[in-house]
Amino acid sequence: MTAFALLDHTSVFVFALTGALVASRAQLDIVGFLFLGTLTAVGGGTIRDLLLNRDAVFWIASPSYIAVASAASVLIYFTAPLLESRRAWIVWLDAIALSVAVAVGFGVAVNLGQGPFIVAVMAMITGTMGGLMRDVVANEVPLLLSQGEIYATACFAGALAGLAVLWLGAPLGLGMAVAAGLTFGLRAGSV
Amino acid sequence: MTAFALLDHTSVFVFALTGALVASRAQLDIVGFLFLGTLTAVGGGTIRDLLLNRDAVFWIASPSYIAVASAASVLIYFTAPLLESRRAWIVWLDAIALSVAVAVGFGVAVNLGQGPFIVAVMAMITGTMGGLMRDVVANEVPLLLSQGEIYATACFAGALAGLAVLWLGAPLGLGMAVAAGLTFGLRAGSV
Amino acid sequence: MTAFALLDHTSVFVFALTGALVASRAQLDIVGFLFLGTLTAVGGGTIRDLLLNRDAVFWIASPSYIAVASAASVLIYFTAPLLESRRAWIVWLDAIALSVAVAVGFGVAVNLGQGPFIVAVMAMITGTMGGLMRDVVANEVPLLLSQGEIYATACFAGALAGLAVLWLGAPLGLGMAVAAGLTFGLRAGSV
Repeated sequence: MTAFALLDHTSVFVFALTGALVASRAQLDIVGFLFLGTLTAVGGGTIRDLLLNRDAVFWIASPSYIAVASAASVLIYFTAPLLESRRAWIVWLDAIALSVAVAVGFGVAVNLGQGPFIVAVMAMITGTMGGLMRDVVANEVPLLLSQGEIYATACFAGALAGLAVLWLGAPLGLGMAVAAGLTFGLRAGSV
Repeated sequence: MTAFALLDHTSVFVFALTGALVASRAQLDIVGFLFLGTLTAVGGGTIRDLLLNRDAVFWIASPSYIAVASAASVLIYFTAPLLESRRAWIVWLDAIALSVAVAVGFGVAVNLGQGPFIVAVMAMITGTMGGLMRDVVANEVPLLLSQGEIYATACFAGALAGLAVLWLGAPLGLGMAVAAGLTFGLRAGSV
Repeated sequence: MTAFALLDHTSVFVFALTGALVASRAQLDIVGFLFLGTLTAVGGGTIRDLLLNRDAVFWIASPSYIAVASAASVLIYFTAPLLESRRAWIVWLDAIALSVAVAVGFGVAVNLGQGPFIVAVMAMITGTMGGLMRDVVANEVPLLLSQGEIYATACFAGALAGLAVLWLGAPLGLGMAVAAGLTFGLRAGSV
């Protein structure tokens, strides 16, 4: 597995944890955990791939993503009752998943030869849309809207920093690391 | 019209009935009936076709699907006031549409040469997403989430049984029939 | 810039105004204005382009649309507090954006060689879906459903009139003008 695929699976796994935790707060059954977990995990990347008209949506090309998301959902199904504050876990895990997903969306768009503007938009979409769908379907106030100023700004600043690093001649991997690092730093600093 | 197209039109027609019945419960006007009826009828198949990157979404390739969905919506507009329990009608018609749609999604994915995992996922998406969009737009608790355990399990079991039959060498039509039959049996048994 | 692109940017700009006004009513921060403004502005055209399987979604091909939507959102962020009745502004601006978007969707579908039925459906989708997503995300009752009879009927009648004009041999521009004019007349007459 390449470093890129490893990052992508990480973001899918952690986003699925947050989706399943929201399902736990809403007292859904195991199918609700799997559904919300998987929707959150692959939602942002799916919208990105549809918009960019890729040959195949990432989880159809490699179904292992769905397996990872399902495993994370089942894990939460059995452990959520042991957690003290699911809300705090959701916010922190969401910050981790968000920063990794921003870097993945950034890398996908750069690899497809998109210009800097679309690269930044795709990084934001990959980072935020899964969580937005999670919150809308579960009828919670979206983190994106309730904590919007710092939430979306963190993604945008991360993507801009990544673009600046690429523009200075750094390899894509470094640009992605900078994007993830700055997004997480800004988001975590505001929690 | 092939047997396949006949099944597909059936699922579109019955799902449109359920969408229009939800519009009736929400006391919408004729446009609300047409909108919710059509959205429910073609929603699952549209998401499936976008995800699988088909050349054309099914109802753009053959607009007769929209005509069928519109006819079903108008039919309910005039007959809904005569029904005793719209909720019971919705649940039963939804079970019928669900099982037929699972078989159609199963057949489409097999015909496109997808592997068994994606075939099962596409069967579930075709079966459940139209009804989910119906319930989200109408602000009702989704049947998929409120009765999730048996609802999604029925689709999944139906798809697995269909795959098993194909694996034993049966023709696609038989696999689809088994998928529809088991989905309906499990779903109906739980209503 | 062609007349077509000018119309399209107009519809994007005015729809973004309405989305940002809804964000103002919901007391969101600047990111909420940008998000709701942009979603409303490009939502209908994005769904149209995905359904029609165009080579690239319009705002990915020309990122100027996102810049226009962002400018409109920021404009409202600073001027909304000065407005007396944001609700009245939303309804009137929505009527303008709706009629222009219907004409644009009409023109795009005709240029892609779609038949009259799909042309009418795409005109309606381009006109109504951005506003529907705006209202669903902001948790307001959709204008499309609450005022559905005249709202969707206006789009449909506009598209039909445009088709009739084309059928009589008129150039596409005239068909689009007729579609926009009739949609606006019917919608404005009902406000």
